[in-house]
Amino acid sequence: MIAGPYLLYLGHSQDEVGIKTSRGMAVFRRDDCVGEFRHDDCPFTLDLPRMGFDQAVAAGAKTLVLGIANAGGTMGEDLVRDAADAIASGLDVASGLHSRLRDEPVLVAAAREHGRTLHDVRDPRPDIPVGNGKPRAGRRLLTIGTDCSVGKMYATLCLEQGMRARGLKADFRATGQTGILIAGGGVPLDAVIADFISGAIEQLSPERHDGGWDLIEGQGSLFHPSFAGVSTGLLHGSQADALVLCHDPVRPHMRGLPHYPMPGLAETLEANLRVARLTSPHVQAVGVALNTSKMPRAAAERLCAETADALGLPCTDPFAMGVDPIIDRITECFEPSPRAATASL
Amino acid sequence: MIAGPYLLYLGHSQDEVGIKTSRGMAVFRRDDCVGEFRHDDCPFTLDLPRMGFDQAVAAGAKTLVLGIANAGGTMGEDLVRDAADAIASGLDVASGLHSRLRDEPVLVAAAREHGRTLHDVRDPRPDIPVGNGKPRAGRRLLTIGTDCSVGKMYATLCLEQGMRARGLKADFRATGQTGILIAGGGVPLDAVIADFISGAIEQLSPERHDGGWDLIEGQGSLFHPSFAGVSTGLLHGSQADALVLCHDPVRPHMRGLPHYPMPGLAETLEANLRVARLTSPHVQAVGVALNTSKMPRAAAERLCAETADALGLPCTDPFAMGVDPIIDRITECFEPSPRAATASL
Repeated sequence: MIAGPYLLYLGHSQDEVGIKTSRGMAVFRRDDCVGEFRHDDCPFTLDLPRMGFDQAVAAGAKTLVLGIANAGGTMGEDLVRDAADAIASGLDVASGLHSRLRDEPVLVAAAREHGRTLHDVRDPRPDIPVGNGKPRAGRRLLTIGTDCSVGKMYATLCLEQGMRARGLKADFRATGQTGILIAGGGVPLDAVIADFISGAIEQLSPERHDGGWDLIEGQGSLFHPSFAGVSTGLLHGSQADALVLCHDPVRPHMRGLPHYPMPGLAETLEANLRVARLTSPHVQAVGVALNTSKMPRAAAERLCAETADALGLPCTDPFAMGVDPIIDRITECFEPSPRAATASL
Repeated sequence: MIAGPYLLYLGHSQDEVGIKTSRGMAVFRRDDCVGEFRHDDCPFTLDLPRMGFDQAVAAGAKTLVLGIANAGGTMGEDLVRDAADAIASGLDVASGLHSRLRDEPVLVAAAREHGRTLHDVRDPRPDIPVGNGKPRAGRRLLTIGTDCSVGKMYATLCLEQGMRARGLKADFRATGQTGILIAGGGVPLDAVIADFISGAIEQLSPERHDGGWDLIEGQGSLFHPSFAGVSTGLLHGSQADALVLCHDPVRPHMRGLPHYPMPGLAETLEANLRVARLTSPHVQAVGVALNTSKMPRAAAERLCAETADALGLPCTDPFAMGVDPIIDRITECFEPSPRAATASL
C-alpha cells in the first residue's frame, strides 16, 4: 500500500492532459494531499499549497505522487532529479508512468540509502489467473464508453461518492494508473498479458456477499480499433449487472484516429450489452454520463435531457450535475424500496 | 530464424494433446524433419525415424524442437536433461513452452559452452506498436472459431497449401507457438500485452502489393469468456477481407468451461462479421471448416453438406477432404476469372 498523505507532482508540466493523474488525486483524495510541487515554468495549479520536499515532509507528507504523463510515458532527467531529491528529504515515490522507477539506478540507489519505497503502479501482480466466467455473487456496475478518455473514471468515482452518500455500500475498482493511485489499489489493465484480461477483472472484483456494489472503472471502447480487445475482456470479466455509458459530446473522432468517426450512443450501448450478456445474461443499462466540461451549462443540460429522452435512460454530467438520476435508476432496478420490502413481508 | 532441419521431441509424453506441436511440425514441415526423439515409455510416434541426438546430428539435424506441452507449460527435470544432452551433441534448441529456455541456467550454460542457440518462440518482439486501424493494401483471410482449439491453425495451413497449388500467392501468418515453429516466424499473441493485440497483427501482416493473400491464424473465440479479448483484437488488427469459420462438431462445451455451451455457427459468424466490420467494412465469410477427425467419414460428409446448405457457404474438413470448395469461393469473390478479365478489356 502507498503511504499517505501525499505531495502531488506537477514539475515542469506544460499541458493539461499530462497532469490528469495529479488532478484526479487532488479532486478525489483532496483530504489526503498536503500540497503540490511545481517548478516556476509550470502554468498549472491544483489549488493546493505549493511546497518543496522538506516543507512537505514537515507538513506530514509520506509519498511524492508523480501524477503526470509525458510523451511516451518516459522519465526525463529533471523528473528523476526531483524524485531523487524527494527521497533524500524522506519521501516515498509512487509513479503511474510507463517507465518504471525501479529501472532508474539513481532512484533505486537513493531509496536504498534513505530507506524509502518506490511504487510502480503499472506493474500487474504476478498471480493473475485466466478468466473462467463462472457466475459469482455480488452486484457489479461497469462504466463503458464510446471512446477512450471520455470520463469513465470520473463517472465511476462520482457514483461511488453518490451511492455512499445514500448509505449504499459501493467500492470503486480501479483499472488504470490514475484510478489505482486514487483508490490505493487495482489492476493496470493496459499492462496485463492478453490471455489474462478477463481473469484480471475477476480477481479485481471477486464475489461479495454484503449486498454492496463493485463499481468497475471501464477502459477503451468496443469501437476503438486499437483497444477493443481490452474492453471486451473487461466486459466479460466484470459480469456486470449494470452498465453506465460514458461519452464526450464534443469529441470530433476516435481518440488518436482521425479516420475513425465516433459511434452513436444507441449503437454503443447495444454492442456492449450484447458482449456483456455472454457472462451476465441479465445485464441492464442504467444511465448515461456525459462529459460536458467544454459546453455552456444551459446547452449541457439540454443535451442531457435530449439524450435521456432518446435512450430512455437517466443522463447527467456526473461531475458537474451529480449522479442522482443514475442512482435512482439503480435503486429502482436492483434495490428493494422500503415500501416494497415491507409489502413483501 | 530457427535453423533446420529438425529433430522433433516427444520425450516421455503420455497424452496426445501434449504433442500437438511436434505433430504439427511432422505434418506441415515433414520434409524439414529428420527424425523424432522419444523415450521408451512414450506411446506415440510421428512416423519419423526414431533417433538419438548424435544420430540426428549425423543425419543433418540442426535444431531440437521441444514440440510438447505439459501441465502449466513448465519444463520438467527430464526435459531439461534431454535438452542439455542435445546441446552437447551440437543441436540448437527451440521451445514453445510457457517456461523459457533462457530461464534454465543449465541450458544457458550448455549453450554458451557448445556455441549453440536457444529459441523461445513465446517471446514477443519488443517493438510491437499500438494498432491504428488504418486501411492497408493487400488481401487478408482470418480463421475464426466457435471455440479455442477447433482446427484454426490446420485450416489456415491447408488453405496455404491449397492456394499455392492453384498458383495463388498465399502466406500463412502464425499467431501461436505451434504455428510459429511451423512457419519459422510469427507473433505469440497470448504473450502480448493487452494494449497491443491489434497492433501485433498489423505488424505481423503489413500492407502487401503483390496481389497475394496473408492467411492469418485465428485464436480463441468471441464466445470464450477467457479469451474473447484476444479474438477481438485479432479481428480488428487483421482487417480481414475474408473469414473462414472453424468448428469441432463433437465438442460438448466451451474448452475448459463446462458451464458454457458452444455457440451456434450462424451466431458465431454474425458476431465475427459485426466486430470485423469496424476495420474492414466489406469483410465476407467464404467458408466453414469442420474438424471431423472423430466422426465416421460418411457422417462427416453429410454434416458438411448440411452445414453448407444451412449457412450458404462451402463447408469441408480441410485436412480430411481438402479445401477446394473454399478456394473456389475465394476465387469467385476476389479473383477475376480469366474470362471476366478478358471481357473487361
